[in-house]
Amino acid sequence: MTAAPSQPVDERFGLGRRVRLPAPLTLASGQNLSGLEIAYETYGTLSAAADNAILVCHALTGDQHVASLNPKTGKPGWWARLIGPGLPIDPARHFIICANVLGGCAGSTGPASPDPATGDRFAMRFPVITIQDMVAAQARLLDHLGIQTLAAVIGGSMGGMQALAWAAYHPTRVRAVIAIAAAARHSAQNIAFHEVGRQAIMADPRWQQGDYAPDQPPAAGLAVARMAAHITYLSEEGLTSRFGRQLQDRAALGFGFDADFQVESYLRHQGLSFVDRFDANSYLYITRAMDYFDLAEPHGGVLADAFRPAAIAGTRFVLISFTTDWLYPTPESKRIVRALHAAGAQASFVELESPYGHDAFLLEAPEMNRIVQGFLASHG
Amino acid sequence: MTAAPSQPVDERFGLGRRVRLPAPLTLASGQNLSGLEIAYETYGTLSAAADNAILVCHALTGDQHVASLNPKTGKPGWWARLIGPGLPIDPARHFIICANVLGGCAGSTGPASPDPATGDRFAMRFPVITIQDMVAAQARLLDHLGIQTLAAVIGGSMGGMQALAWAAYHPTRVRAVIAIAAAARHSAQNIAFHEVGRQAIMADPRWQQGDYAPDQPPAAGLAVARMAAHITYLSEEGLTSRFGRQLQDRAALGFGFDADFQVESYLRHQGLSFVDRFDANSYLYITRAMDYFDLAEPHGGVLADAFRPAAIAGTRFVLISFTTDWLYPTPESKRIVRALHAAGAQASFVELESPYGHDAFLLEAPEMNRIVQGFLASHG
Repeated sequence: MTAAPSQPVDERFGLGRRVRLPAPLTLASGQNLSGLEIAYETYGTLSAAADNAILVCHALTGDQHVASLNPKTGKPGWWARLIGPGLPIDPARHFIICANVLGGCAGSTGPASPDPATGDRFAMRFPVITIQDMVAAQARLLDHLGIQTLAAVIGGSMGGMQALAWAAYHPTRVRAVIAIAAAARHSAQNIAFHEVGRQAIMADPRWQQGDYAPDQPPAAGLAVARMAAHITYLSEEGLTSRFGRQLQDRAALGFGFDADFQVESYLRHQGLSFVDRFDANSYLYITRAMDYFDLAEPHGGVLADAFRPAAIAGTRFVLISFTTDWLYPTPESKRIVRALHAAGAQASFVELESPYGHDAFLLEAPEMNRIVQGFLASHG
Repeated sequence: MTAAPSQPVDERFGLGRRVRLPAPLTLASGQNLSGLEIAYETYGTLSAAADNAILVCHALTGDQHVASLNPKTGKPGWWARLIGPGLPIDPARHFIICANVLGGCAGSTGPASPDPATGDRFAMRFPVITIQDMVAAQARLLDHLGIQTLAAVIGGSMGGMQALAWAAYHPTRVRAVIAIAAAARHSAQNIAFHEVGRQAIMADPRWQQGDYAPDQPPAAGLAVARMAAHITYLSEEGLTSRFGRQLQDRAALGFGFDADFQVESYLRHQGLSFVDRFDANSYLYITRAMDYFDLAEPHGGVLADAFRPAAIAGTRFVLISFTTDWLYPTPESKRIVRALHAAGAQASFVELESPYGHDAFLLEAPEMNRIVQGFLASHG
């Protein structure tokens, strides 16, 4: 990213950006959070009218490196199949923003950040945050970038929840919403799986009520949490076709407790590699935010009412689900579309065939790409 | 259970029985296990021809107290809705046997038992066992009781696996098999969930490679394992209708990490109460046995071949599944029935409507009771 010498460099734009919000943020809990920092990246050029901005929202364990090399893992951006030159979301046309969520651990303020009041890490003294708060922080980022209205907001999983929350809480600031493999509320089963993960972390003696040293994290507990969650991201069908009962590096059962089966070995690897890139307290806070998520709750349980202001503002929606996603299954997307229609919003819905479960939104998904491309093109 | 004064008391029969097998058992692993003890209960009277015996096989966390008050929990037997006076399996007609599985922790030899060679607890020096081994131990129990052939074997979940294993490994000793909410093999997803539980236990520093003191068990890890497993026993539908997003003892979200939601509180209770009644090492061994289970594996993957000797012997089968059971779902039962038919066995299959997921087999299930009753009656 080098700027042409004739152009002044705008430090707000580009990879590896970070901003400290000038004013405190009042959270859904009522608490104020000051000195909030947001780590983000932008791709492409903001148009003179500032009307080509697309905000990309990441999932539970995602980060701002949506289409650039991830500095921690050395891997391509997590949505490099959808976002990039020649792809449906293209820096040649769009000004693309992706920010690490409030509460995250990839540069934005979260439980691993120092509490400005004491200089110590927040740890469990960090306030409990919500999806609404994440979105409020993103709105402040837009202010910083000089963007009043988003051409679109897009996300999968928790990113899709944020996209929907944008419509609900900032209806005049977003013209189009793309919510993929998402939900408008966390179900009892969703909460249950998260609670298992949290209990696994908190059961690790190294957790120390959250006050672990950065180099002594509750890695074992966090790995177990990740393993449990990871199963929910995959489908039974996908696990069977990928692993079945195949043995790992052996011809016969070992009659022991090593990883006999490939699926065990794979899961252990998922758990172990996760602890290198994620903070355990962040995991607690972000899962909590997801569990708290229920867009209908402030409207007496009537989801349509959450979307009425967006419908009046003319916000368009597309919802995408995947056939084998049992974490945020198709009926939940259909429920959202019904509510959007009841609110009078323009909303379409597509269920895509995939054997890959919830994770399908992160994988090669040509149909998903076509839908996103078409939806954005039809919008201008 | 008092004997009439005119009858001699047979110490082999009744509640709270235990037998030490006279000869060592050769396990599927090739190891020999000597001094094996089996804790069991019998109900009813063995006919003179010894042809009215029904063996009931318990699930992962079950025990021999199938129809009697559980001495540890003070609760009724785990299948007291199906077995008892006036019920489909009736001690007035049947001689009912239920034994704690090999590897268990309710009185049969398992990892918490003393190793006869050293006097110390086996812990992780206990040999890895299989479902086939559990059934072999039960066959020895039948020898002890003077029973050559079972009128029927019945079980749900891991109990259903044992019932199927009876047909596969002892085809001439069982005339009828009732397998409920079961499978003929553990799927990749099944293995994955068990592996999470095992890793949770092994991650607990109190586990001490299995050598924990009985009063210092890895309770936190075992509770997490139980919580993860418990979610798989319930359906999304059941969790939603029972808990939804209902809050626990509060009017609004607490913005903390206490159990805000009823489902969290419920799961925590499930985890905590489990550690009082179950041994962590037993949990490792029994889940391992289940993961190793694949009746087709010794037959080059052809499940029908596992059942051919039973088909020739005339063993009859009934398979029952539940609509919302995603742990051992209907397609797996159907696959077994297809294999049974291919083997030429008499086999029927019923899928029952239930919102309760895998746990349905333990709950009030009038249709299940009717099917068991009819199947046993048609057999004589």
